[in-house]
Amino acid sequence: MNVTDATYDILGIGNAIVDVVAATDDQFLSRHSMHKGAMALVDAMQADLIYAAMPPGQESSGGSAANTCAVAASLGARVAYIGKVADDQLGRVFRHDINAVGVHFPTEPLVAGAPTARCLILVTPDGQRTMNTFLGACVTLDPSDVHPHLVALAKVTYLEGYLFDPPAAQAAFYKAADAAHAAGRQVALSLSDAFCVDRHRAAFRKLVASHVDILFANEAEVTSLYEQNTFEAAAEMARQDVELAVLTRSEAGSLVLNGAVTLEIAAELARVVDTTGAGDAYAAGFLAGYTAGKPLSICGRMGSIAAAEVIGHYGARLATDLTGRMAAITH
Amino acid sequence: MNVTDATYDILGIGNAIVDVVAATDDQFLSRHSMHKGAMALVDAMQADLIYAAMPPGQESSGGSAANTCAVAASLGARVAYIGKVADDQLGRVFRHDINAVGVHFPTEPLVAGAPTARCLILVTPDGQRTMNTFLGACVTLDPSDVHPHLVALAKVTYLEGYLFDPPAAQAAFYKAADAAHAAGRQVALSLSDAFCVDRHRAAFRKLVASHVDILFANEAEVTSLYEQNTFEAAAEMARQDVELAVLTRSEAGSLVLNGAVTLEIAAELARVVDTTGAGDAYAAGFLAGYTAGKPLSICGRMGSIAAAEVIGHYGARLATDLTGRMAAITH
Repeated sequence: MNVTDATYDILGIGNAIVDVVAATDDQFLSRHSMHKGAMALVDAMQADLIYAAMPPGQESSGGSAANTCAVAASLGARVAYIGKVADDQLGRVFRHDINAVGVHFPTEPLVAGAPTARCLILVTPDGQRTMNTFLGACVTLDPSDVHPHLVALAKVTYLEGYLFDPPAAQAAFYKAADAAHAAGRQVALSLSDAFCVDRHRAAFRKLVASHVDILFANEAEVTSLYEQNTFEAAAEMARQDVELAVLTRSEAGSLVLNGAVTLEIAAELARVVDTTGAGDAYAAGFLAGYTAGKPLSICGRMGSIAAAEVIGHYGARLATDLTGRMAAITH
Repeated sequence: MNVTDATYDILGIGNAIVDVVAATDDQFLSRHSMHKGAMALVDAMQADLIYAAMPPGQESSGGSAANTCAVAASLGARVAYIGKVADDQLGRVFRHDINAVGVHFPTEPLVAGAPTARCLILVTPDGQRTMNTFLGACVTLDPSDVHPHLVALAKVTYLEGYLFDPPAAQAAFYKAADAAHAAGRQVALSLSDAFCVDRHRAAFRKLVASHVDILFANEAEVTSLYEQNTFEAAAEMARQDVELAVLTRSEAGSLVLNGAVTLEIAAELARVVDTTGAGDAYAAGFLAGYTAGKPLSICGRMGSIAAAEVIGHYGARLATDLTGRMAAITH
C-alpha cells in the first residue's frame, strides 16, 4: 500500500441516501411481501405506497458507504465521500450530516432531476431492519463523478456493493479502482447484501478477482458470492481471491483472512436495538485502524467495537465518542 | 362542555414544524448565545448558521400542539390538527407522520413560498433541549385556515402559545376560540415557553381571561404570565382566570386547579434522556382523559405517564403503546 502523501485515509463511494426509520412488526413485513433483513429496490410509486402505510418515522442520513465514512471520520480517520444527492431538502440534510463529522464531500448535487434517494427502514422488535430503497438521484452517479486525482489522494478507496444497482455506477467502480491502483493505493469492496450479490453475482466475481484488495462481507453475502453451501468453503475461496478478506458473522464475531494467516475476533457484547449499519460500522472501525497502520487483530477489534455501538441504538452512525476506547486497544 | 355529536375529541392549532435534533454540550450553547431550555426564533440566515455548526441530526415531526395531537391520537383520542407546512419534502414528512397516527390534518400546504418550518434542537447531556425555530411557512397561517365548522366538531380546541409569534395567528386564535364557544365547546391554551409569554404577555393575559377554559403551563410560564415571584401566587391567579388550570412542575409533579378544588399529582419516575415534548405529552394525556370523561385525578395521571414515556427517549412523540397502561388507571 502506498501511504506516502495520502490526504485521505478512506475515500468512500456509494449511494447517498436519507433513511426513514420506523418501528413495526413482522405482520407489516409479510403484508407487504418484504424479506426480513434484506434491502429491496423500489420505484417512486412503490416507495409512496410503503411510506403511506408506515408508522411515523425518524429521518437521518444513511447509505452504506456513507455510514462507513461517517463512522470512520468520527473515529479520527481522514475521509472523503463520493455520492449523488439532489439539490433538495433531504440532499441538504445528507450533506450537512456528513460534513458535520468532517467528511469531505465534493460531489455536485443533481439539479432538476429525481429527488434525493431514501431508504424506508422497518425495524422489527428483534432489532432486524428491512429496507426499501428508492434510488432517486443516485441513479445518475456515473464515471464523471469519480475524479482520479481524488482517488489517488486516499489510502483506501471503499466501494459499496449496492452501487451495482444503479446503471452507470459499475463503470464508475472500475474507473475508481483503476485510478486507485495506478496511484499505488488499495481498493476495498463491501458486498452490502446477499440479494444484491444475487442480482449481480457474475459482475461481482469479476470485480473481486481482478480489482479488489480488501473484501468485506457477512456470512450470507460471501456464501452467495461463491455459491457455496458452507461459510468455510466460501471463506477459503475469498482467501484465494483477495489480499484481505474480512468476514463478519454477527454475534459469532469476525474472521480476517490474509494469505496464510487467519484471525478470529470475538464479537463485542451488545444490546441489540437496531442492527442498521452494523456491517458499515464494522468496516469503518476496521479501516480506521488499517489506514492508521494498526495490526489486523486491532483493526478487527475496532470494527467489532464500532458495530456494537451502532447496534445499541436507532441509527447507523455513532452516538457516542469511541476515540478514547479505540486508542486503549493494545492487542 | 357540549359533548354531543362531537366528531373529534381534540382540535389542535399550532406551528407545523419539523425538528432537527442533535446532541451537543453546554459550550455549544454559550458559544451561540443560546438560553438553555428556551425556544428562540431565528430567521433563515441564522438558522443556516446554526445548522452549519450543529453535529449530525435526526429529523422528525415536531411542533408543540402537533406533538400533543399525535400523542393524544396514539392514546386513542380522535384528533384533528390545523397548521401550515410548505409543499416540500419536510412538509410531506410532517403530513405523513401526523396522518400515520390517525390525526386528521386538512390544512392546505403553502405553495411557492417559504419552506416548512424547522426547529433546530440541541440536547445537552442533562436532557435539556434548547430550541431555535425558523418559522418558514408557519407565518402564513391566518384566520382563513380556521374553519368554524371543524372547530365546532371538536370537544376541545387546543391552542399553543407559540402561535402568538407568527403575525396573523393571533387573529386565527380568536376566530377559533369564538367558534368553539359559539358551538358550546371548550378552549384550551398551552403557554409553551416563558420567553414566548414574555414576548406577548399582555395579549396572553387578555386571551386567557376572556377566552380560555383550560390553561396548561409550567412553573416558569405561569409565573411569567402573572409576573409573580412565587409559583403559589401565580397559581392562585390562574385559578381565578380559568375554569381549569393545569400546572406542571417537572419532577415535582403537577397541580390541577378547578375552582375550589386543588389536585396534586406526583410525577412518574422517568430516566431523563431528552425532555423535548414533555409538556406537550402531558397535555395530550390529560386531554385524552378529559375528553373521555375521566375524573381530573385520572387525567393528571395520564398526563404524567405520557410525559414520562416521552422523556425517556429522543423525540417528542410516543415510542411505545401506552393504551393498556392508561386503561388500567382506576383512580
